[in-house]
Order: sequence, then C-alpha cells, then structure tokens
Amino acid sequence: MTKTAELAAKLRGLDINDMYENDFFLTWDKSDDEIAAVFAVADALRDLRERNISTKIFDSGLGISNFRDNSTRTRFSFASACNLLGLEVQDLDEGKSQIAHGETVRETANMISFMADVVGIRDDMYIGKGHTYQKEVADALKEGYEDGVLEQKPTLVNLQCDIDHPTQTLADLDHVIHYFGGVENLKGKKIAMTWAYSPSYGKPLSVPQGVIGLFTRFGMDVVLAHPEGYDVMPEVEEVAKANVTKNGGSFTKTNDMKEAFQDADIVYPKSWASFAAMERRTELYGKGDFDGIDKLEQELLAENATHKDWECTEEMMQLTKEGKALYLHCLPADITDVSCKEGEVAASVFDRYRAPLYKEASYKPYVIAAMIFLAKVKDPATALEELEAKACNRKEF
Amino acid sequence: MTKTAELAAKLRGLDINDMYENDFFLTWDKSDDEIAAVFAVADALRDLRERNISTKIFDSGLGISNFRDNSTRTRFSFASACNLLGLEVQDLDEGKSQIAHGETVRETANMISFMADVVGIRDDMYIGKGHTYQKEVADALKEGYEDGVLEQKPTLVNLQCDIDHPTQTLADLDHVIHYFGGVENLKGKKIAMTWAYSPSYGKPLSVPQGVIGLFTRFGMDVVLAHPEGYDVMPEVEEVAKANVTKNGGSFTKTNDMKEAFQDADIVYPKSWASFAAMERRTELYGKGDFDGIDKLEQELLAENATHKDWECTEEMMQLTKEGKALYLHCLPADITDVSCKEGEVAASVFDRYRAPLYKEASYKPYVIAAMIFLAKVKDPATALEELEAKACNRKEF
Amino acid sequence: MTKTAELAAKLRGLDINDMYENDFFLTWDKSDDEIAAVFAVADALRDLRERNISTKIFDSGLGISNFRDNSTRTRFSFASACNLLGLEVQDLDEGKSQIAHGETVRETANMISFMADVVGIRDDMYIGKGHTYQKEVADALKEGYEDGVLEQKPTLVNLQCDIDHPTQTLADLDHVIHYFGGVENLKGKKIAMTWAYSPSYGKPLSVPQGVIGLFTRFGMDVVLAHPEGYDVMPEVEEVAKANVTKNGGSFTKTNDMKEAFQDADIVYPKSWASFAAMERRTELYGKGDFDGIDKLEQELLAENATHKDWECTEEMMQLTKEGKALYLHCLPADITDVSCKEGEVAASVFDRYRAPLYKEASYKPYVIAAMIFLAKVKDPATALEELEAKACNRKEF
Repeated sequence: MTKTAELAAKLRGLDINDMYENDFFLTWDKSDDEIAAVFAVADALRDLRERNISTKIFDSGLGISNFRDNSTRTRFSFASACNLLGLEVQDLDEGKSQIAHGETVRETANMISFMADVVGIRDDMYIGKGHTYQKEVADALKEGYEDGVLEQKPTLVNLQCDIDHPTQTLADLDHVIHYFGGVENLKGKKIAMTWAYSPSYGKPLSVPQGVIGLFTRFGMDVVLAHPEGYDVMPEVEEVAKANVTKNGGSFTKTNDMKEAFQDADIVYPKSWASFAAMERRTELYGKGDFDGIDKLEQELLAENATHKDWECTEEMMQLTKEGKALYLHCLPADITDVSCKEGEVAASVFDRYRAPLYKEASYKPYVIAAMIFLAKVKDPATALEELEAKACNRKEF
Repeated sequence: MTKTAELAAKLRGLDINDMYENDFFLTWDKSDDEIAAVFAVADALRDLRERNISTKIFDSGLGISNFRDNSTRTRFSFASACNLLGLEVQDLDEGKSQIAHGETVRETANMISFMADVVGIRDDMYIGKGHTYQKEVADALKEGYEDGVLEQKPTLVNLQCDIDHPTQTLADLDHVIHYFGGVENLKGKKIAMTWAYSPSYGKPLSVPQGVIGLFTRFGMDVVLAHPEGYDVMPEVEEVAKANVTKNGGSFTKTNDMKEAFQDADIVYPKSWASFAAMERRTELYGKGDFDGIDKLEQELLAENATHKDWECTEEMMQLTKEGKALYLHCLPADITDVSCKEGEVAASVFDRYRAPLYKEASYKPYVIAAMIFLAKVKDPATALEELEAKACNRKEF
Repeated sequence: MTKTAELAAKLRGLDINDMYENDFFLTWDKSDDEIAAVFAVADALRDLRERNISTKIFDSGLGISNFRDNSTRTRFSFASACNLLGLEVQDLDEGKSQIAHGETVRETANMISFMADVVGIRDDMYIGKGHTYQKEVADALKEGYEDGVLEQKPTLVNLQCDIDHPTQTLADLDHVIHYFGGVENLKGKKIAMTWAYSPSYGKPLSVPQGVIGLFTRFGMDVVLAHPEGYDVMPEVEEVAKANVTKNGGSFTKTNDMKEAFQDADIVYPKSWASFAAMERRTELYGKGDFDGIDKLEQELLAENATHKDWECTEEMMQLTKEGKALYLHCLPADITDVSCKEGEVAASVFDRYRAPLYKEASYKPYVIAAMIFLAKVKDPATALEELEAKACNRKEF
C-alpha cells in the first residue's frame, strides 16, 4: 500500500464535511479531525509530487494573494501551493491598485475574484485588524457568490493575521510529527515556546499564539516563556488552557527562559512584541499618530534591549533533553554575528539545525495546498486515490 | 438546446470574418454583427464556466498587460480572461523595465511579445496619446509577425484609452441586455449618461464617450448631461449622431441633470474632466510643465466644486421611470459619506444597487475573453460547440 | 524528414550527459557538443512552436526569476521560455521580500524553490560578485535537494553576470548561424566586437566578454576593439586565446575602430565600462562609499565623452565586407538623434538592420528554454521526437 493510499484511507475515517466550501482562519476553529485531515492531504500531495505524479485539480482558475506585510517564504509557499493544484497566482498589490482611492473591502474582494478559487491574505500588522479584515473579505466573497457575481466561492486562507498563523504552525507541527515518528508520539513531549531578543521591532504575535493554540491539542507540555510584559493575547491563552483540559498535557507560563528550556524536547525561541504594546500601536494608528508610533518604537526597542540574555545559545541548548531538543523557527531568524550583532540564536546552534529548519519550512506549501484541496474537493480521499491511479506525470520525459 | 449551443448557432449567422487576427480599439470600428458576436461569445464562455466546462483554447502562451494608469478591476479582469483561455499573464511594469532608458515603442512591443497571443493596454491619461500609442504598438506587432520575429500576431485589446473604454462599455451593455431580457428590448429605452461631482481630478473621458458611441447603436434615447464646459470629444459626439441616423432613437445633450434623469430607464452618473481641460493638460505635459499641470489641477478642482449638486441622490432617482431606473457605474464610485464627503452618488442609492453593480462588473472578464477568442479562433461557433462537446472539467473532483 | 527530426538525430550524436541536472553559468564551462546541443534544442523547440505543436514538458512547476538589475527583454525571454515548457514564472522582487532583513543567500535560495524547476538570475552590477552569487545559489539548491528540502534540484540559468551573458551571446550566435546558413560557414568570418560611445554609464562587460569567449570557438577571426583603458577581464581574454589555439581562427585586439571594421563580416559595436573602473566601483561599493561611486561615475562619463567618434556610422559600415556586414546588438542600442544626441549607432544604420536585430533577439527565449530542457530531460532527442509525434496543439481551433 502506498503512502498516499494509506493517507486516503485515513482521511476517509475523518469527519471533515464542514471543510468543503469553507475558509481557514484559525486552527482552533477546526476540529481534531479537520486538523488531522490537513496533515493527511499535505503528506499525500507531497508523496505524489515526490513520485512525479501530477496533483492538478484545476485546469484553470486563479489564486489571489494579498500581502499587507512583507513576505518571501509565505509568498512563495502560496504560489507553490496554487501551482501544485493548477491555479495561477495573481498578487493584489495595493500600491498599484485603486484601493488607495478609498475603495471598500467588499467591492475589492469581489472585483479581484471573478475567477478566483482561493484568496490568501497576510494582514498581521495591527492587533484587532487582520482577522477582522479577513472575515470581512470572506463574507463579501460569500455574498458575491450568492448574488451570482462570482462563478465560484473562493476559499479564504489566512496567511498570517494578528491572532494566528495557521499555515506556519501547521507546517511546524507536520515537521515535528515526522521528526518524532507520528502524532501519537507527541504526548508528554515538552515544547518551549519562548521569547528571544531581536534588534528589530514589532514582530507579530501570531506565531507564539498559534503555537500555544495548536500544540496544546496533542497532550504535550507546552511552556510559554517571555520577559515580564511580553504577554500574548489573553483569549489565546484561554484556548490553550481549554485544549489542555480536553486533551491532557499542560500549559504553563514562566518569565525564565532556562526553566522553559529545561528538559524540553522542542524549543521555539523567537522575538515578538507584547500584546499591550501592539494595542497601543493600533490605537495610535487609528488616530493617524505616526509620530506617536515612531516614539513607541524607540521605547519598545529600548525595552527589548534590556533582555539580550534571552538568546538560544549552546549553553541554553545544553539544558534541553539530552542537549538535543529539536530547534524550531519560522525563519528568518536573527542570528547573532550573522544577520545582526546580537540576536535570537547563536550561529553555531542555527548552523547545526539548518537542514531540519529548511525541511520545516518545506511543509508550508503542502499545508496551504491541503487547505485549498479540502475546501474545494467534496470527496478528498477518492480524489487522492484517483490522482494516484491516473498517475499523470508532473514532468514528462 | 443549451445556452451555448444557441449562442453558437447565432454566431454562425453573423458576418465576423474581419475579427479573426484583428485588434479591438474602439467599438465604433466594429460592425453590428461584430458587437453581437462579442456578446454571444462572452455569454457562451460564461455559460460553459458556470457548468464547470473548461474553455482553455491555449495550452501555453502569454497575455501581456501594460497598465499606464492604476487599475484593480480591469487588471484582474484581463488576468481572469487570459486564465480562462489558457494564457499566462505577464505585466509590463514600465518602472522595472528598460523603457525608462529611451527605448522606442516599436522595439519594446516586439521584445515582450515573442510568445504573446494578446497585448492589453491601458493608456488613458493624455488626450491624443493613448489611442495613438495603442495603434503604434499594434502596427509594430503586425510588422514583427510579418518579419518572422514573432511566431504569432498578438491581438491588441484596448483596456482603456483617451477615446474609448470598450471592455467597460461592452460589459455595461451586456449587463443592460440581460437586465432588460434581450437586446431587442433596448429600443426606445432612455439612458442618461450624466456627469457627477467628485472630489478627485482628471478622470478619463473614455467612459462617457464610450457609452454615447455604443448605446446609440440600439435605437435608445441617449442623453448626455454635464455642466457647461465639461464637453466630451466632438468626434465621438459625431459617432453618436451618425449611429442615431442609422439606427433610430435619439442623441441629445443637456446641462441639466434633472432633465436627463426624467423618465430615464438607465442612469450612469459619473465624474469626468472636460475635453478642453484635458487638452490643456496634454499640452503642458508635452512641454514638461509639471508646475503648470499642478496649477491646472487646482483650477479644475475649484471648478468641479461649483457643481456639487450633480449628485445621484434619492430625489434624483425619484425622477426616473417609476423611480426605478437601472443605476450603472464603472466603479469605484465616489460615494457620499462613504468614500468621500461629497461625491457622485448617495450611499443609500449605491447600497440598493450594489449587487447589480458587481454583476455589471462581472461581465468584463468574459467580454475581454470574447475579444481574444474572436481574434484567435477562425471558426468560433464550431470551437464553442466542440468545447461543450468535449466537456473537460474546469475543476476536477 | 522534418527539421525537428533532423535536429533530434543530430542531438543523438552529441555527448551531452553532463548537461542533465546541471546548471548554465558560462559558455566556456560547456563542451562544443554541449553548445551545439543548445542550438539543436532551441531550433527544434522553435520549429515545433511555429507548427503549433505544444512543447510543454511540465504540467506544473515554477520558474523563479531574480533580476538584480533592470531588464525588459531578458525578463520576458525568461518568462516566454518557462511558459513554452509549462512552468509558471514567479519573480523574486527583493524590494518586496525579506531579503532586506539580512537573510542569507542560502536560506532564500531554498525558500523560493520548493516547487522550482529553474532559477534564472541576473546580477551584473559588480565585478567579482554576480557569478559568485549565482554559484552560491546553485550550491544551496543542490544541498537543499540532497537534504530533502526541495523535491527537485532546480537548474540555475545565468541571465547575465559580471563575467558572461550566455543567453544573449548564444541567441546572437544562433542568429549568425542562421544568417550565414550553418555553423560550418563561420570559419574564417571576421567579427568586430567593438566598444562604442554611449552617454550612459557603467554598462556591464558581460556582452563583449561573452562574445570573445564564445565566437572564438568556431574558427572565426575575432577582433576586440576599444579605446585605451577599456579593457575587459584578462581571464576572459585567456579563454579567447585558448579557443583559438584549439579551433583555429584568430583573436586580436586593437584601439582603432576602423581597423576592426575593415572587411568585417559581422560588427557588434556596443558601449561598456572598463574592467579597471568597474573594479574600483566594486571596491567603493564594498566600503559603502556611495559618494565615491557618484564621483567615479562623473569621471567615467567625462572619459567616455572623449571617445564620441566610436560610433557605428554609415561611413564605418562602408569599411566592412562589401559594405554589408551583419550588424549585431543586444538592445536597447543608444541610437544617435533617436534615443540620445550622440550614441553607439547612426539612425540610418540601425533602421536598416531593425528586422534582423529583432530576429536576433527572438532566439533568446528558445535558447533559455533549451538550457532548461537539457538540464531537465534525460534523453532530449527522444523527448523532441515524442513531442512531435504526439503533436498536441499549442492553440486549439
């Protein structure tokens, strides 16, 4: 039995009817079966592509990306996912478009989606804004479809918002599952999601939030560590706690990086801005107070600089389980003496984990493709089986 | 008999031989049969796509877009049309290219078109320039094909010039035809193409010009209304008059918005700059007098501001046939209290017509695809029938 | 026997095993058989496309382009080549990406290549940098593939570096071969690769270097002419000399444009910056001395201006073989009284050669496609035969 056949069989046992014609905003909107389905489809698509079997399910159609913040890896992951399924990518570059002319979200959402099967949005800059914007777009697309404006209802994929970064954390988790040889082996494993020092400012909270909201579903011991004041959104901590109540494991917090690293199986040291600071920033933004934003930035950078000891050094790594915890990062990392003078991680640690880090990133295109596949295909298990049976070459000759 | 079969049969009765391997600049270059063919193909392509039948006629090939003015909806409509037929879009972004290095139009036209089946151009900023530029490009492409430089002669599609905006007005008209249940029902209908106040400056004349040049072909009563001094190009008014002589109906002008709205079946209230002002602007541009252009802008904005009463309010709508005229707009509209303080249309009017407005816009990708289809396929009726018979899925599973 | 069948047969006789899964940096990395293979595949792909036969060998996959300098024709040639083979182009626009955040070359190379079959790079601005950068990227891609990060090893195509511009010079040469009726007719032909005056600054040396490194392989008399001080890289002159030793013909240098043009069969007059000046520029760049770079620019422009007599005039053309040498240029040319006041070539000369110049450029997409084809297809002769036998339409109907 091939890997794809196994995964299709597994998929058939999952309750995933609600994924069809639906969107993907936050991992905690999704049931355990739905999360499992994303991994099953992602791994099957990868297996097929590795065997040079085409996974195109669209002969034409567009994938629209809207990046309201800079991006390389997510941009290319989205493009790769669309291409894998047969969709052509069109970027909505708001600089070039008439959105600057005061156009409403609803109108633009429709105008770009006449032939769109998926709309991917990254909007992570302002607390309380990104997720709300994505919801508005999704509502507009649903209405446009019902009104006969759009020939199909595009699925919305969250490519990072102020709350969650599901394509990242699911790629991280798929990597972890493969590393530990199966999702069943995660139970009891300790993961340290910790803040780390970076000379840059205002990094989104969606990664730490996404990690605590997702990894607590698998019976793991999830520790969130950060200096005082660098809290994440309380709602997401509630999600983590509820997960633990349901699935076992634990969710704890500490202001001590060493405590978090102690005996950890996995470490995820990464800089972020505090929730409270980001809320102040959103308020200033709302008032158009850009001087205030600049001042806040200086203040936060100064505050950050008091925590330069939050670095993932060799000494810190020695504290982890047998000194060999799996090191995760969403990339790019701020590497001490490489990309900056003092950063999140020591060069020697980063170097040792480079290949696994790249592998971690390589799951993202498949995770995004799986989200689209599950939203667009009514019977994904059969579809995977038929793709495998047809076995069209991805590359001829 | 399916809708597509009916449309193919209709197409077979039209004299459209001249469309093959030809370009699309202005609607009044085209015969009545040719205009009818655009609608037939556009509607058939939409019917097929709604039934999940692939309309790809290219297995590879490029569609080149060259937007010399901002655009969201036309950009995505062009991309959608190309994708629908199997062409990949490449934007010629003149900022990134070597055109800034003083390259001639002829050379660039060839260099971007080695694999191009269509070149779509928007160039609407300067009176006397846009259409001329498009003609130069088309001539260069014809020559390049004849010289064996290009393997195929790309068709040129006017995505808006200084004179006409055929993809817009044909989409508008296709919407109107569906709304009134057939082109034969347009006879005797009154359409008010009227100026409306906008706080922005220098909007192209191509929409009002395109509307009076096109809608006068169908026996309609076409009224062009604007404040004194906001005239459109006299040549296009002559086109409208000649259409009326040939097809009946009427073409009248007024400086009174109410007179235009009175008993109208359709209203199209929209801001534009006057022809005379745009000619002055072109002259200043020719001299490189950018201070002069800025001064002219201030002058025109002040002039505009004396006509804030030209707004499509609920009171104005009450004047129309049974108070229920079909409201048209090319979008984005300047909506009072929404996108600006005082604009072209009251928010309540716009809101009531939102779904039909979006539907109006949704015809544009199909109109563009029809233009390409008719230029590239020798026997379009048979081609549509064969696409329907083959019935390849647009989306599998 | 069709042209494609002939070319496939010829290809079968060549030793090209090393091209499979390999990269294309410099023409002199490649054996004579490998260069011949590029022309055979390029011409076969063109023959097939002219006969409306699809040459798609990929049903999905990406072609990544990374232009670190402006480009129109190479950009569109790369896009055309990818499209011809079934790959979708994604530009890595470093302005939009996180490369600005201090990301390493190795990481970015992997992050953009998850589904990439080819990465095309233009990096020609700094002596000693471009080729090195391309090598680093290629090494990273090889490593990424071996580590299981990438499902395929993308082939790297040099779209212009500081040393060579192989897609340009191979297109030039393919044009020359067709013009003279076969590669065997090049023996004994004289080509004048000469400097010419341009009012612009710092044009790359990769074209003259590429020409002397490539054309000396065919028993031609290659003359490199430039004012004193405008030398090219000595290493490349050594390549030219070694070619002559092996293949006959000659490689000579002169500071007299007339001497070079005398009895020439082919002339290639083109501006470039001197190697020494470009080295100084690279040093200044290394120190971040942008004032120094500006000063150097002024100095070089003043130096250039003392050589305005280096122009390809009608009088100069009269010196060539029967006054009818084939005029080559990589385009865009600086045309006197057209694109600048005083330039590389007289308008009447350029005009007379316009059609052949455009034809010269039209080989580039096919040369690039051939490079990709040869890197990705294990048995290219059979693949061409099968494409011809299958004869799928490029355009239906």
